[in-house]
Amino acid sequence: MSQRARYIVGVDLGGTNIVVGAMPEDGSREIAFRSQPTHAAQGADLVVERMIQMIEDVITVVIAETGATRADFLGVGVGAPGPLDRALGMVITAPNLGWKMFPLRERIQSATGLQTTLDNDANCATLGEWFTGAARGAKNVIGVTIGTGIGGGIIIDGKLFHGSSDVAGEIGHMTIDSTGRRCGCGNYGCLEAYASGTAIAERAREALASEVDGVLFRMCGGDLTKITAQMVYKAATDADPVAVDVVRETARFLGAGIGALLNVLNPDVVVLAGGVVNAGEALFGPLKAEVRRRAFAPAVDACRIVPGELGGSAGVVGAIAGFKAQTGITSA
Amino acid sequence: MSQRARYIVGVDLGGTNIVVGAMPEDGSREIAFRSQPTHAAQGADLVVERMIQMIEDVITVVIAETGATRADFLGVGVGAPGPLDRALGMVITAPNLGWKMFPLRERIQSATGLQTTLDNDANCATLGEWFTGAARGAKNVIGVTIGTGIGGGIIIDGKLFHGSSDVAGEIGHMTIDSTGRRCGCGNYGCLEAYASGTAIAERAREALASEVDGVLFRMCGGDLTKITAQMVYKAATDADPVAVDVVRETARFLGAGIGALLNVLNPDVVVLAGGVVNAGEALFGPLKAEVRRRAFAPAVDACRIVPGELGGSAGVVGAIAGFKAQTGITSA
Repeated sequence: MSQRARYIVGVDLGGTNIVVGAMPEDGSREIAFRSQPTHAAQGADLVVERMIQMIEDVITVVIAETGATRADFLGVGVGAPGPLDRALGMVITAPNLGWKMFPLRERIQSATGLQTTLDNDANCATLGEWFTGAARGAKNVIGVTIGTGIGGGIIIDGKLFHGSSDVAGEIGHMTIDSTGRRCGCGNYGCLEAYASGTAIAERAREALASEVDGVLFRMCGGDLTKITAQMVYKAATDADPVAVDVVRETARFLGAGIGALLNVLNPDVVVLAGGVVNAGEALFGPLKAEVRRRAFAPAVDACRIVPGELGGSAGVVGAIAGFKAQTGITSA
Repeated sequence: MSQRARYIVGVDLGGTNIVVGAMPEDGSREIAFRSQPTHAAQGADLVVERMIQMIEDVITVVIAETGATRADFLGVGVGAPGPLDRALGMVITAPNLGWKMFPLRERIQSATGLQTTLDNDANCATLGEWFTGAARGAKNVIGVTIGTGIGGGIIIDGKLFHGSSDVAGEIGHMTIDSTGRRCGCGNYGCLEAYASGTAIAERAREALASEVDGVLFRMCGGDLTKITAQMVYKAATDADPVAVDVVRETARFLGAGIGALLNVLNPDVVVLAGGVVNAGEALFGPLKAEVRRRAFAPAVDACRIVPGELGGSAGVVGAIAGFKAQTGITSA
């Protein structure tokens, strides 16, 4: 006799898209995952209204598909750009959204009548890969998500580690070159200043400055301002020498940061996510070689470095897993 | 009516000295702490014999001073140079001692008849400062011990964090300059290559190469090969400009590493130990300024950066605290 299934809704609020979906509490499947543009410029109220509408739509689909009732929904987990005050459920500041001190948890909770938890989006992405993705079953995990910037999350002994003031996991802002490139954070030589999507496109532009042909040059129509990190990954898989060089350098920078993390935290899995995983072996080959050069052998031998498996769903899955962890609800 | 006190013996095995002492299980005081030269060149058997003799001497003193009996001794905690296999109680390799795959825990346990635990010396030093020193009562702690090399330890939620294969905490081998100075580990740009005692003396030699006078120059009698890190700290407190510069640079390098650790681990305390704390405010002032430049404000605001309080006793105190943690014995 099986127990009646219970469901949790997850929300991943990004600067570009909102992704919402549901899972049974045991994480056994993804139901009704869907994405809509955030339209942050319309202001916080309209963004929250859209989130609530998406949550209600997902609940309706789950009920229709499974025969569940509203009482079978345990709550809502939300991942949002940080920094956050988890205790208060507030987004302290989110530059991409234009939000400051916004009581997101309370707004979702009062509109849906469902218990709601809040966590950092990069933490959620890491927790998602641990819950049902590439780091399933691992004990100590470091997640590195490469997009516009570099986000990170740390799992210690199977639990998300938040640090002493909810800031832990800012892996993009490790110094890898103390007198190096200026970073958006104001500091010099952060990993993010070398290996974020933004930095990868920038380095490709620098490398192409004296070129007049090649795959990457043609992809941007000769207009270097049009180069994106995605173009670089694509051109690298097409063996464009400039793109291959940029990806190889990216791997070296990431290897310096991830190697340091292996020496400090000795994880069993590092999950790399974001568009960069599209570069495939052109990235992972030299990355693993660099980590092996930089970290102690027992740390390297204990650790798998793998691409994320959940893609754009990782944040939602992690928000659901975060709801379980924060509320103490465990799967049957 | 007070319960009868129980005692734990701690041992800190270093390449230069062996320190042994005892504490009541609640850590309320240090009893019979004493130090002897290791004489590692005499071979492992004689070193272990000396350790056992020192343990027995300490037990005798505690019994004489407190009226305890041998049955009141819960066991022995040992800190030793790593890497170690804690599960097997083996020193895997200790270059300073010339040991390989040495069953240290079993040797101490069978000779004393007391339950024995083993942990890494840098972990013990950090745990000691957490148990009764500068990080008392803290939740998340990073210990940085600067000697010949740079050792480290990490406490997460009040417990020593060992990582997935007992390597965690190798803070000296974070890359702070990915194309920088060669490190003893074979890598380039490790924190240890810039800020260990060895590196500090080396940088002072480089800075003095074109000098013919000054406090530091006179301290070494004009023979630059005689310069030690201790001389540099001393000369800096005497306002020697070359030494002050070397200490300020050291603070910048340490600040890059510690700043990265604040962004990644967001601790509430960083404890700095070793001879370097003798440089006092000449070090801590610019170090804190550099960390504030490099780390996010909520991480900086949450964290005290302090000198260790236990000096040469930290390792013994931490070995005792480690015995409690590994055996599950908690103080009354």
